[in-house]
Amino acid sequence: MTTQQLTEQIHQKKSFLCIGLDVDLNKIPQHLLNTEDPIFEFNKAIIDATHDLAVAYKPNTAFYEAYGIKGWISLEKTIHYINEKHPEIFTIADAKRGDIGNTSSMYAKAFLEDLAFDSVTVAPYMGKDSVEPFLAVKDKFTILLALTSNEGAFDFQTKSVDGKELYKQVIETSKQWKNSENLMYVVGATKAEYFTEIRKIIPTSFLLVPGVGAQGGSLSEVCKYGMSENVGLLINSSRGIIYASQQQDFSEKAREEALKMQQEMEQILK
Amino acid sequence: MTTQQLTEQIHQKKSFLCIGLDVDLNKIPQHLLNTEDPIFEFNKAIIDATHDLAVAYKPNTAFYEAYGIKGWISLEKTIHYINEKHPEIFTIADAKRGDIGNTSSMYAKAFLEDLAFDSVTVAPYMGKDSVEPFLAVKDKFTILLALTSNEGAFDFQTKSVDGKELYKQVIETSKQWKNSENLMYVVGATKAEYFTEIRKIIPTSFLLVPGVGAQGGSLSEVCKYGMSENVGLLINSSRGIIYASQQQDFSEKAREEALKMQQEMEQILK
Repeated sequence: MTTQQLTEQIHQKKSFLCIGLDVDLNKIPQHLLNTEDPIFEFNKAIIDATHDLAVAYKPNTAFYEAYGIKGWISLEKTIHYINEKHPEIFTIADAKRGDIGNTSSMYAKAFLEDLAFDSVTVAPYMGKDSVEPFLAVKDKFTILLALTSNEGAFDFQTKSVDGKELYKQVIETSKQWKNSENLMYVVGATKAEYFTEIRKIIPTSFLLVPGVGAQGGSLSEVCKYGMSENVGLLINSSRGIIYASQQQDFSEKAREEALKMQQEMEQILK
Repeated sequence: MTTQQLTEQIHQKKSFLCIGLDVDLNKIPQHLLNTEDPIFEFNKAIIDATHDLAVAYKPNTAFYEAYGIKGWISLEKTIHYINEKHPEIFTIADAKRGDIGNTSSMYAKAFLEDLAFDSVTVAPYMGKDSVEPFLAVKDKFTILLALTSNEGAFDFQTKSVDGKELYKQVIETSKQWKNSENLMYVVGATKAEYFTEIRKIIPTSFLLVPGVGAQGGSLSEVCKYGMSENVGLLINSSRGIIYASQQQDFSEKAREEALKMQQEMEQILK
């Protein structure tokens, strides 16, 4: 997928919503637990109910690895289902990987080629040669952690490095890397006032924005400071949508929550 | 396992060698490819041939995820085999994970509880609440990336943050975190001159040291500057040992290479 195709999809659906598929067996409706693959059945129902309102789905790999081989099978079925039924949708493996060069190549193969996600999230701590193997995959995107939505973001990311915050150094440095046009960035919604500064460095790059909803970030604030001429934002919501109800009606309730966000986004896009 | 038990094992075996089980199907002997689970058969042979010379095994998860569900099964069989046959050996899931709190908890469950590794490597970029869920698991260790062995380590890790290199900030800050006694650190052998400074901050913490051998680091230099009174070092070698031969004799050749390192270590321990 290209960013142009992504922007087209955004304008068609009047939405830049990304839904996080972070499935916890303790939180899904009881009746699904009797099925052969409860995680996949849950995801399938959520996808069927929301695919016209969302432009991206983002399974976080932790929630699948926590169930071992069964979880890995559910992840594989989920991505295959999205890619077959809704090939226009942008898919994100939220894996936060990163390792020395030859090892990062293995992760890039796993997520971008074999599982055929459109993108994967990557941690920047190990620098250039840990990220470039992901960037080398054609027509795929590497979403680099810049400024995350959690409290711990203030431990290192906002600390001053040679007179500039670490997250800004990460963004600026990464622009020099090979195939940097394949970069997107994670920037948390809980820090909306930072978007202005970030847009000075990367005016048009897509930003994946967690932290709206459950974590307290404001959609309108993020859009005010972070939206670019090609929209350039993917706003993620996980728990607020997928766990809107834990009853039989979970997928309808998830749709209602997704619709609320899509309608807010439609207003903003006007 | 406790660090005391680890140190006892080191003195018994006269070795502080960690063997990296980074299995690439393109590099293992041809005759194994006809078996049902080539990756596990390879690991089993390496473990059988070297378990008296090594105190730790470290599978890097990338090499297993690259083979999808099959790879995950191989990883599970490998860790179960080590834990059953050689429960004294320290096991490291080299996963370099790290995410917001509730997500890191899922990773901690996956690696430290379900797969029952003794430890897992974690990236520090997302700060305190991304690491503490790992530290909370009793009698298990979190091996935090500090100064890695790759070229990209100079992109951010050695940059000055408020007058002190980032990797030092990471080490110092992490000492304040809850259950920080469960921390170990990754410090690359390629930067032996940094060990003196690191030992001033953490005199006795165990350091996992990649980069000896294939990446050019020197064992004697690392020990000179990095060894503590409880030894405090785990020296990792992956490719130099496991791919010593790609023929039928691969496990004997791996043993020969491991023996060379163990003998060097025995001299140093005297």
